[in-house]
Amino acid sequence: MEQVITSTKNPRIKNLLALQQKSAERRRAGLFVVEGRRELEHCLEAGYEVVELYVCPELLPADVRFPDADILVVSPAVYERIAYRGTTEGVVAVVRTRHLTLSDLQLSANPLIVVLESVEKPGNLGAILRSADAAGADAVVVCDPLTDLYNPNLIRASIGAIFTVPTVACSSAECIGYLKDHGIQILTAQLQDSHPYYDTDMRRPTAIVMGTESTGLTDQWRQAATAHIRIPMLGRLDSLNVSVSSAILLYEAVRQREG
Amino acid sequence: MEQVITSTKNPRIKNLLALQQKSAERRRAGLFVVEGRRELEHCLEAGYEVVELYVCPELLPADVRFPDADILVVSPAVYERIAYRGTTEGVVAVVRTRHLTLSDLQLSANPLIVVLESVEKPGNLGAILRSADAAGADAVVVCDPLTDLYNPNLIRASIGAIFTVPTVACSSAECIGYLKDHGIQILTAQLQDSHPYYDTDMRRPTAIVMGTESTGLTDQWRQAATAHIRIPMLGRLDSLNVSVSSAILLYEAVRQREG
Repeated sequence: MEQVITSTKNPRIKNLLALQQKSAERRRAGLFVVEGRRELEHCLEAGYEVVELYVCPELLPADVRFPDADILVVSPAVYERIAYRGTTEGVVAVVRTRHLTLSDLQLSANPLIVVLESVEKPGNLGAILRSADAAGADAVVVCDPLTDLYNPNLIRASIGAIFTVPTVACSSAECIGYLKDHGIQILTAQLQDSHPYYDTDMRRPTAIVMGTESTGLTDQWRQAATAHIRIPMLGRLDSLNVSVSSAILLYEAVRQREG
Repeated sequence: MEQVITSTKNPRIKNLLALQQKSAERRRAGLFVVEGRRELEHCLEAGYEVVELYVCPELLPADVRFPDADILVVSPAVYERIAYRGTTEGVVAVVRTRHLTLSDLQLSANPLIVVLESVEKPGNLGAILRSADAAGADAVVVCDPLTDLYNPNLIRASIGAIFTVPTVACSSAECIGYLKDHGIQILTAQLQDSHPYYDTDMRRPTAIVMGTESTGLTDQWRQAATAHIRIPMLGRLDSLNVSVSSAILLYEAVRQREG
């Protein structure tokens, strides 16, 4: 019979917690953690390598099939400690990270790309990935990122879109060069010197570029822009969440292309 | 000299914490808590009555002017306990709740209303209020709510839009009656038997009705609908956040009306 891990001080459990909690540890080990059956399914479909699988049989539905990995059985008490989300799905996986580059992207005939400059909050990036999936975007490019792509809050907010939408981290200079080389128009979201987004033609190859909520885009992006676009603010607060803004702009491209 | 509250066991501090943490206590007392200078400004502009103001002079910028209220000075340690958000703005206010009804609403000539049926998460409702403010919506109506409108996570996510956008809680039956009486078309967001949202005319008086992310709208709303609309899902996950969906639909109305 398999041995059950019953202590949260077990060295493997400690490693798992470090991977959940520390981006430096994720970078060092080249591993990250996936929790939740739906997220794990998308992760496997995307061809990621599952290295270890922590399973709590008491919490596991009978119909779960396991990927090829080192399977470790844990007690309910240990599972409760490693289950970041407090769900009761009974599976937590350690997965090998992948680092796509711009040259790995396989673009459609009429690409739609979201570019995020220095987005701060993993939850916002996850939410944008979710909308990018829904809008059928080709890729999300994160320039000069301040968060790693395998942060558990990001994976959670993306509900697995981090695995379904090709996501690249690179410098702004690299990304600008790539977009220009591929004839993709650069639409920067900014308030100054801009037109309402719905007056802009998004039916051709398009990158929608968003800055941070607090400071907006840097000059290199403003200067590289084909056009500056803005979302009209008709209220008192003059402010939209960056993930909401991204979704509004992405779906305007969908509307123009499909409508 | 004023007496400084230095103990988190002070009865007034305990009351304040109960108002932050318990919706039943907010309902019983008819009071809620506002934190953050910007939120408090919007709250005052909207004419709410501030009952108590907890101030930590060590954390307070010099230019802050106080509303007319019972001012209590607290030590930095006590402030840290009552500051729900961990901000360092130095002011937390206890404010009297208000309960708008549908008949209190003053609609514009061409109303745009968001209706939310049984939205579960205060953060989602707050995010929708923020987008409703930006899109210049007349009101947000929350039908059969599962959260109270003065939940601290809601206020925080709304960044104050709970004060700038008239927000009504009522039953679905009342809301349907009101919309029909006022000649406002009812567009229900649902996947079955629906048209892409951008094929629907939103230039006339419009209510956009959203259900929960998990179970969608109830039959009474589907049957009351002028039209059923959907946001096309072009990705793998078949899912958008309810606050993102609301924003996409609100801004389609803005585009049709302003564009």
